[in-house]
Amino acid sequence: MRDTFSKTPIWQAIAQALRSELAEGRYVPGDKLPTEAALAERFGVNRHTVRHGISALVEEGLIRTRRGAGAFVASTPTDYPIGRKVRFHDNLIAAGRLPEKRVLLVEDRFATIGEAQALAIKAGDPVCSYHGLSLADGQPIAVFESVFPLARTPNISAAFRVQSSVTEALATVGVPDYTRASTRLTAVRAGATHALHLQVIEGDPLLRSSSVNVDLAGSPIEYGRTWFVGDRITLTLEN
Amino acid sequence: MRDTFSKTPIWQAIAQALRSELAEGRYVPGDKLPTEAALAERFGVNRHTVRHGISALVEEGLIRTRRGAGAFVASTPTDYPIGRKVRFHDNLIAAGRLPEKRVLLVEDRFATIGEAQALAIKAGDPVCSYHGLSLADGQPIAVFESVFPLARTPNISAAFRVQSSVTEALATVGVPDYTRASTRLTAVRAGATHALHLQVIEGDPLLRSSSVNVDLAGSPIEYGRTWFVGDRITLTLEN
Repeated sequence: MRDTFSKTPIWQAIAQALRSELAEGRYVPGDKLPTEAALAERFGVNRHTVRHGISALVEEGLIRTRRGAGAFVASTPTDYPIGRKVRFHDNLIAAGRLPEKRVLLVEDRFATIGEAQALAIKAGDPVCSYHGLSLADGQPIAVFESVFPLARTPNISAAFRVQSSVTEALATVGVPDYTRASTRLTAVRAGATHALHLQVIEGDPLLRSSSVNVDLAGSPIEYGRTWFVGDRITLTLEN
Repeated sequence: MRDTFSKTPIWQAIAQALRSELAEGRYVPGDKLPTEAALAERFGVNRHTVRHGISALVEEGLIRTRRGAGAFVASTPTDYPIGRKVRFHDNLIAAGRLPEKRVLLVEDRFATIGEAQALAIKAGDPVCSYHGLSLADGQPIAVFESVFPLARTPNISAAFRVQSSVTEALATVGVPDYTRASTRLTAVRAGATHALHLQVIEGDPLLRSSSVNVDLAGSPIEYGRTWFVGDRITLTLEN
């Protein structure tokens, strides 16, 4: 790489060397790369050249850098289709990932004003609130709170004490199928609690979704808020 | 508020006082609130109590805080429907905002591999690249790059030198209507250049959208990447 007659810029050669090592599995998703100083020494170049090579890999999405923490091998984000029918389990299987949901908290309480509006019930009506964590191949990809109107989904809390699937729980309380009525999406910073559950850094970007699912008669049966980790999930829409 | 027999916790009374002042327009979106110390002195309470009151307003979305910068009055985000037909101008008018697009750069170049795949053309085929800024009521809400295959949208760059609307430009080159074929959404941190154009802080969360629009025959005519400011835009989907 010290050949001054070479046509390949040195930073590109470094990017290619690292790209190969990623491809052959020398580093796997989540691994921290050696420091700039270590790589500069290894390749016999200055740190500026190393930085240039790494930024090419960041552009391609292969590497992610965190100020003060270093450069990390990125995971391929999981595609997550949203449309008329959104099913966590099926989406992950289709993406070749192992789906898992963990229950964080289940409680019966009373609907807030916002929840009541979304669910077309009265503020103060009884609801079941299910806080959970969604994982793909054992890695957290989202944290969520789903709220169910108890009048239309009686005793659904019991279902969440023995298993974690929303689809299954709804089926056991008499809602065999449901579709997505509306979705609202924005981007927010991870707060401390979410960062802890999601294993990200406080301030990392999350894609927040608020959605309403309805039963076959069109009555709202779930108001869900989900915070997806920005670099682990891509929501997709096809028309 | 120093009445220890009052049933309302003091922090709630402070939140209510600030909420009223926001409602009556004493502070308008974008205004910086007085410091914690100033508010503590004004209400005759300690800073912890002020912080508690302000965090309630942050929860409600009325106030946004930036570490080291203070607390700011939030703007109501603009709803931006995405679906089969997505029109910037119409979306903003429907939301009661004044739409504006500013051209940052227009250039004819050659399609990258990713762009060629999205547009169903060959890598290296000629395209027009249009970098622009989207504003609502004069406030930046998104920065974008739209790429048009010149074979299907001949000389479209000329249209962007005299006006900024994608819909109008497509019409002038023989594409009178178009629909959204696919959208891919994730959340990312604002880099330095985007932060500058969007008037946000580097690291603020942006909602990134990659989308393909097709003409009435189903041929791709636009590959767009848009970075929306997380707290100024809410993408909405109705089924």
